[in-house]
Amino acid sequence: MHARIMGILAAAVLLIPACAHGPRAVGSDALFQISTINALMLGVYDGDFTCGQLLQHGDFGLGTFNGLDGEMVVLDGKVYQVRADGIAYAVPDKTGTPFAAVTRFDRERVEALSAISNIETLEKEIARMAGNENAFHAIRIDGRFAHVKTRAVPKQEKPYRPLVEVTAHQPEFELHDVEGTIVGLWTPQYAQGLNVAGFHLHFLTKDRSRGGHVLECSLVTGTLAIDTCLDFRVLLPDNNEFKAADLGQDMSEQIRRVEK
Amino acid sequence: MHARIMGILAAAVLLIPACAHGPRAVGSDALFQISTINALMLGVYDGDFTCGQLLQHGDFGLGTFNGLDGEMVVLDGKVYQVRADGIAYAVPDKTGTPFAAVTRFDRERVEALSAISNIETLEKEIARMAGNENAFHAIRIDGRFAHVKTRAVPKQEKPYRPLVEVTAHQPEFELHDVEGTIVGLWTPQYAQGLNVAGFHLHFLTKDRSRGGHVLECSLVTGTLAIDTCLDFRVLLPDNNEFKAADLGQDMSEQIRRVEK
Repeated sequence: MHARIMGILAAAVLLIPACAHGPRAVGSDALFQISTINALMLGVYDGDFTCGQLLQHGDFGLGTFNGLDGEMVVLDGKVYQVRADGIAYAVPDKTGTPFAAVTRFDRERVEALSAISNIETLEKEIARMAGNENAFHAIRIDGRFAHVKTRAVPKQEKPYRPLVEVTAHQPEFELHDVEGTIVGLWTPQYAQGLNVAGFHLHFLTKDRSRGGHVLECSLVTGTLAIDTCLDFRVLLPDNNEFKAADLGQDMSEQIRRVEK
Repeated sequence: MHARIMGILAAAVLLIPACAHGPRAVGSDALFQISTINALMLGVYDGDFTCGQLLQHGDFGLGTFNGLDGEMVVLDGKVYQVRADGIAYAVPDKTGTPFAAVTRFDRERVEALSAISNIETLEKEIARMAGNENAFHAIRIDGRFAHVKTRAVPKQEKPYRPLVEVTAHQPEFELHDVEGTIVGLWTPQYAQGLNVAGFHLHFLTKDRSRGGHVLECSLVTGTLAIDTCLDFRVLLPDNNEFKAADLGQDMSEQIRRVEK
């Protein structure tokens, strides 16, 4: 993997490129994913992997929990569960997850950010810095936010409804003048159906007490770090719900409605 | 992974299912892939991994070589290169590959096959036995074939043309009354763009002298073995051609034309 450090405020730029000679080494910097977004969209809300297993493959990422019980934020090697009350809870290793993606976060490229007024502008800044839209990127923004609007999916009971129905009635939260961290992923368009193509951002306050899936935000000041992943690994569930799901359909429009 | 042995001619059936209690272990039985089919479709014919590296992650699979120099068959831990003359050549470890997928083949399920008159019927038999269309499957058929029609893509020179143009003028080969092995993959529909959704079958004669990408076949008698992979790993190229390619487009129709 590359190790690049970009100077604060586009000042001194130090590049330490990977050796480009000879065949590439097979690195350990994988984005490790459990199940697929299409399965989650269709109501496959119970998985056969635990958060403890997830942490063996990464210290940074996002997802959800069995029964769709809230938004997962994995940060600095800890798993946080933002439940439908907007509160972030610690998670025992044995808690199950039906969908999540993590990596061992390397601060490959770091850049200071000044005021950014909305999520679209923030995403443009990240895309500019990330550069390679055909790679996966893990995205970390530590900063002070003027405003963060989040949601957290509420725990479901069987029979499970599709995700697009659940998020139509989701609890939403407004946080103002708050310090915290955005934990996000960029997924290439060609992997739509496996994960959410484009940006997928979760949030956790600096005191690790609140957060959720980011719907809108404005930044006062912060630091953006990007870890590019050229190694993408997916573990598929071994259960009947996953086997029977009609995963081949194009769910791009429903995913857009669920994510925004 | 499951270990299942299904009796010859649907006679005695012995099932050894995986333990379904508690969280699932993260297995080592991955389907390990280099690059994506969409990149290959768009003419990204040079990769930054070698066949030697590929063999570290599997002993069974298929792909192609740098410059699109023929069809790759990986069988029993050896890489064979079926070039545009229809002949299978041994491959040095240092040979590069722009697209390939391999696994460590386990004979999880084995079944005898009797006469099958065409590729469509063969694929239906495999699908019936594989069962889970949302998983990846490695497929091995050892047998005597009445007929196998193959093709082998010819080595390209820069500037590279898209794959759909190359295969419009591909060398094709007819093999009659021949013993050999089909080396194939099933990719779920949701992973179209990453690999070829559906079946992708290559062939190698028993004496390892000829083969190619299977366009048609009829079987006299044989043995079908399936290895289901619930762990899918993709390594993306780290080169400018891959970064710049418009990989997000739906190339399903072009892929169908290239493969059949």
